[in-house]
Amino acid sequence: MKSVSIIGVGLTPFGEHWTQSFRDLIGKAGLAALESAKIEGKDIEAIYGGTMASGRFVGQEHIGALMADQLGLNPIPSTRLEAACASGSVALRQAYIAVASGLYDTVAVGGVEKMTEVSTEEAGFALGGAGDQETELFHGATFPALYALLARMHMEKFGTTEEQLASVAVKNHANGVHNPNAQFQRSISIDDVMKSGYVSSPLKLLDCSPISDGAAALILCETSKARKITDHAIEIKALEQASDTLALTGRKSLLHLDATVQAGKKAFAHAKISPSDVDFAEVHDCFTIAEVLAIEDLGFFKKGTGGKASEDGLTALDGKKPINPSGGLKAKGHPVGATGIAQACEVFAQLNNEAGKRQVQGAKVGLTHNVGGSGATCVVGIYQKAGGR
Amino acid sequence: MKSVSIIGVGLTPFGEHWTQSFRDLIGKAGLAALESAKIEGKDIEAIYGGTMASGRFVGQEHIGALMADQLGLNPIPSTRLEAACASGSVALRQAYIAVASGLYDTVAVGGVEKMTEVSTEEAGFALGGAGDQETELFHGATFPALYALLARMHMEKFGTTEEQLASVAVKNHANGVHNPNAQFQRSISIDDVMKSGYVSSPLKLLDCSPISDGAAALILCETSKARKITDHAIEIKALEQASDTLALTGRKSLLHLDATVQAGKKAFAHAKISPSDVDFAEVHDCFTIAEVLAIEDLGFFKKGTGGKASEDGLTALDGKKPINPSGGLKAKGHPVGATGIAQACEVFAQLNNEAGKRQVQGAKVGLTHNVGGSGATCVVGIYQKAGGR
Repeated sequence: MKSVSIIGVGLTPFGEHWTQSFRDLIGKAGLAALESAKIEGKDIEAIYGGTMASGRFVGQEHIGALMADQLGLNPIPSTRLEAACASGSVALRQAYIAVASGLYDTVAVGGVEKMTEVSTEEAGFALGGAGDQETELFHGATFPALYALLARMHMEKFGTTEEQLASVAVKNHANGVHNPNAQFQRSISIDDVMKSGYVSSPLKLLDCSPISDGAAALILCETSKARKITDHAIEIKALEQASDTLALTGRKSLLHLDATVQAGKKAFAHAKISPSDVDFAEVHDCFTIAEVLAIEDLGFFKKGTGGKASEDGLTALDGKKPINPSGGLKAKGHPVGATGIAQACEVFAQLNNEAGKRQVQGAKVGLTHNVGGSGATCVVGIYQKAGGR
Repeated sequence: MKSVSIIGVGLTPFGEHWTQSFRDLIGKAGLAALESAKIEGKDIEAIYGGTMASGRFVGQEHIGALMADQLGLNPIPSTRLEAACASGSVALRQAYIAVASGLYDTVAVGGVEKMTEVSTEEAGFALGGAGDQETELFHGATFPALYALLARMHMEKFGTTEEQLASVAVKNHANGVHNPNAQFQRSISIDDVMKSGYVSSPLKLLDCSPISDGAAALILCETSKARKITDHAIEIKALEQASDTLALTGRKSLLHLDATVQAGKKAFAHAKISPSDVDFAEVHDCFTIAEVLAIEDLGFFKKGTGGKASEDGLTALDGKKPINPSGGLKAKGHPVGATGIAQACEVFAQLNNEAGKRQVQGAKVGLTHNVGGSGATCVVGIYQKAGGR
């Protein structure tokens, strides 16, 4: 298998895009990625795209073909992947495998979701399809409810507090202030979170990531070729995926997400590094409890101490282990299919030392962690500067 | 890239499954494929699955994880692909790339759709998402209408008749009589087709494939390993994918499907054979005109002569170029995500000389042709017996 690097990235702002279509978002992110990589459309040999629920959000399937169409890149193969909120990372992984195999030298990877075309209720049902329709969603368990169960269990077992959960949101909003593409570029306080209404106890409105529109794109290139054409290449050292039961009821434990543990272990082994070697991580904070679980399950903090680590500032931009310098899903926004790709975009900026006021000083190794549903899919990526030119 | 073979197949009957769930169908096809390959679940390293519109048909996304869950194969990576009615073949192609890359030795590939849980009207809108929502479906152009335009153009330009189109359906029903998994195991006459009502002129009810439930699965294995464990391995000599515009209005010509032409040319070049070397083909006859276009676009018959070739019996089981010995989408049924996988299942049976009364005598080289939407995605596969053991 060959080494694979990211050579360019493109992002639309995340937020509510009332004047831009699903196609518009794809076109903007895709063209931005081509410009960033300083290559042309004719250089792209295949497209991989992640979208979760375009059928229910915009009445459109066949997203691979649509992406090639919108970017004028027919007749190259263009393929859509879906793994709920991990759709973007799963698309990235298939693109990575295709380049690593030697089949292609240069491919484009995109992620997109346009979630605001339907009512919040309809969006809730569409997103609920990430869990088990028959045993969870049908009975009313939408996603805040599922993560509330995980939060309650963590609180009961480890004494994690609602204030500690709130500290995750406060930290991510603080980072989002410095991200010009973030949906919420404003800081919030613990008090703001605590006073926001319960969505599903113990999770309050400001514990939850928002409904968002947005797209993100990457250009991947075989590393030896990448080194010849750019000094910005970021090498993918590992990209591992794992599965767990769709419904929470099938899990052996609700104190961790096993797919995160499994994907993380494989990724660290493949990259031949340990969690302490990671300088910063973009993790899947769809709800504040999800970030707490992630930083424990990835081995950054001991099981049960993630809430306190956050409260103590250890995950802040200037902390021991900066988490979600982009603002995370909470502040940056969470157009689900785009999220995994946007995480890789942030890693690209950080490892190239181009993240402005949210730069993690001296960052050499970055990690991405993208979860589908309540943890039935997880993809963990590890990245470092490729050097070259 | 390594050589890849199919070592086992599993199919549910296609039809209306009122007493079996989406999960049930996946489980049955998956277990049947494992039994066929004479391996166990623990031998599977990854799963790839194709489904078009599970979100709209059964309220469920996150199908990769669901497949691993239902088959008890967590925590291996399990990944869902979508390319409208070509979802199955696109999943097969990514699985093929993953094995060819050397990343995995043995993977499972599945395709599934359960289309009868919603009304026919809702199904029509869900399927319409395979075309362009904004410029086609929104204005009422569901799939029979799009293919009717293609049929009308073919009739105007080449003199193709409605009777010639009908002969495609008659031939496929004749083959379906011998397929125990086919939705329609009964013969029909030209007169039956001509007297069936217009759905969208010139296409009548019996020119159209049905709404179906069903699942299909394959086990792929690196060929040198496959040869050691079975004498049934069927080698994938080529599996190529191409894209075209989502909407018909973007096409340069409506007399052919360019994605078929492009994918076919690449597949023949990769397999180093010509169309005349193919002993039989499973092609995408979602409507009778689609089979006529396919057999021309793949180079089996000269452009414009596909209707007459069918009428003259050249595509019959004992004809010069047998097409759709399984009964095709028309008689076998068309659970869209499963269709591409079911085509490969038929090739496996035929090349192992185990297709019973529908066996193509002396078949050595088989071809599959799976189209998404009105041709915006096409995947063409070429297969032959791997030999061994």
